[in-house]
Amino acid sequence: MSAREHVIVTGGAGFVGSHLVEELVRRRYSVTVLDDLSNSSRENLRSVIDRVKLRVVDISNKSWISKTPPASVVFHLACHPRSFSFMNPQRDVTVNLVGSVHVLEYARRNDSRVVFSSNSGIYGPCRLAKENNPVSCLTPYDVDKYSTELMMRAYNNQYGIKSTVFRFATIYGPRQRVNEKYGWRPVVATFATRLLMNRPVTIFGDGLQTRDLVFVKDVPDALLRSIHHEGDFDIFNLSTGRETRVIDVFRMVSRSVGVKTSPRYGPPMPGEIRRMSYSNAMIRRKLGWRPTTSVEEGIRLTVEAIGKQIGERRGGSVR
Amino acid sequence: MSAREHVIVTGGAGFVGSHLVEELVRRRYSVTVLDDLSNSSRENLRSVIDRVKLRVVDISNKSWISKTPPASVVFHLACHPRSFSFMNPQRDVTVNLVGSVHVLEYARRNDSRVVFSSNSGIYGPCRLAKENNPVSCLTPYDVDKYSTELMMRAYNNQYGIKSTVFRFATIYGPRQRVNEKYGWRPVVATFATRLLMNRPVTIFGDGLQTRDLVFVKDVPDALLRSIHHEGDFDIFNLSTGRETRVIDVFRMVSRSVGVKTSPRYGPPMPGEIRRMSYSNAMIRRKLGWRPTTSVEEGIRLTVEAIGKQIGERRGGSVR
Repeated sequence: MSAREHVIVTGGAGFVGSHLVEELVRRRYSVTVLDDLSNSSRENLRSVIDRVKLRVVDISNKSWISKTPPASVVFHLACHPRSFSFMNPQRDVTVNLVGSVHVLEYARRNDSRVVFSSNSGIYGPCRLAKENNPVSCLTPYDVDKYSTELMMRAYNNQYGIKSTVFRFATIYGPRQRVNEKYGWRPVVATFATRLLMNRPVTIFGDGLQTRDLVFVKDVPDALLRSIHHEGDFDIFNLSTGRETRVIDVFRMVSRSVGVKTSPRYGPPMPGEIRRMSYSNAMIRRKLGWRPTTSVEEGIRLTVEAIGKQIGERRGGSVR
Repeated sequence: MSAREHVIVTGGAGFVGSHLVEELVRRRYSVTVLDDLSNSSRENLRSVIDRVKLRVVDISNKSWISKTPPASVVFHLACHPRSFSFMNPQRDVTVNLVGSVHVLEYARRNDSRVVFSSNSGIYGPCRLAKENNPVSCLTPYDVDKYSTELMMRAYNNQYGIKSTVFRFATIYGPRQRVNEKYGWRPVVATFATRLLMNRPVTIFGDGLQTRDLVFVKDVPDALLRSIHHEGDFDIFNLSTGRETRVIDVFRMVSRSVGVKTSPRYGPPMPGEIRRMSYSNAMIRRKLGWRPTTSVEEGIRLTVEAIGKQIGERRGGSVR
């Protein structure tokens, strides 16, 4: 039996992380998940929980660095969500940036490659932004993400650590959670959960604001393509390059749920980016990746998964 | 007696900080110094020690935020030196960036203005770099400094915190210390100390590499001009705009010391920036500041001060 390649996924019990871990297990990697379970859950990993090592650690506490065996790749997805950064910027910078420096220090000791989930929000309002567009960091969260990119470049320059940065567009799909405690209300999950529970949906703003929506199951393939890529340091938009209006998301979710209803409208969210889309020409060309799930199909699958979850929760509760 | 305006100086017992504190005391401000004394000393403040409040705290430990009374301005100068960032990048990012977020959180609670000492090294090799030049962060330290600037901009955008960033050129003058523990060997202080102690001087590289040298006593005036400046968020080079070659620094120091000697030459330092000068057109125009001490005069004053220090140390020791 040949030894399997060992990789780490920080935030591996989270929304995107758990889909990646499933794919890594399917491809027979040996996987260690580092996750503090603050905005994620063991439940997300239930299909693979006996085939991965889950270590409940806070990556901003550096003790994990020396305790974790060498890995060829660290997929660094752990972070506090953007909404949380407004509530506690100090904690945000500690987890999102100091935690990232710990990942880089681990990589330096173990000669690992780093794959990092950055955020396309750093471009500010834009249409078909390219990777070399100027960035505009308006929130502490944006600064953390962009600073981590800069830190990766510095580690590449100083220590030869290879890394790939993916600037995620709006990822959606099964297992994405609405987290009211963190003020985290991703658009597809929020609409789906509320409509499935027969509750009214409020759109903040006129509904004509757009998102570049990537289905979560299309993400692992992109991240995995990067680890055998020859580049030393690359930045890729992980996006469709297409805008979907929030009102159209509402319509598609309603259709999938099978209800006929209208949204309420509330005041626009302060600091919301109105239009966004990001060119994926670079990732197509260099990694050969492209999104394969249409928004209609992705939303249908998301509604189905959330419906099942709600059903399970109801079935399991004493009524 | 009218209440005096209260201001904070982080790193106020350090090289630049202590000169600023003296000037603040002279101008009758009430001053709190926050300093961990890791690369600085009470000795630097001896002329004003009974007129300021010195609190020995590590700014990366947030407990000082709630314990420090409101101040109208925080002069945020505390940082680990660039050389230290190569030894311990994690500690570096914690002090230099998390510490800075603590300063911003303090400012948010107390509606303070922030004045920050950034680093012109973030431009990389350059001649007469302007503030809107692209930056090129090659070391973790550069990333910390630049990320703090970005964080200040984000805090201004999100919370209206006013700040002024000064990108320091090469500051030199009395009280600058050679810190071998941190690998910190500033050029003027190193040459002066060694020549005064009759030791050989080694120039790493050919000596034709240049610095934009600002005398430390010219710095406080620039920082003080910014606090009554109307801008919400500004970035200024704090520089002379003139290049001085390292070999010429050696010659001027030798002349001031009164020795005739030649330097030894060693291999160039990895990552050293060869040519540097930074335009000061913006700070001249917007703040009316300009450097007033010539390099010759500044070096003479520095050699004199270091000579006195060495004399005192010798006089005080048992021989």
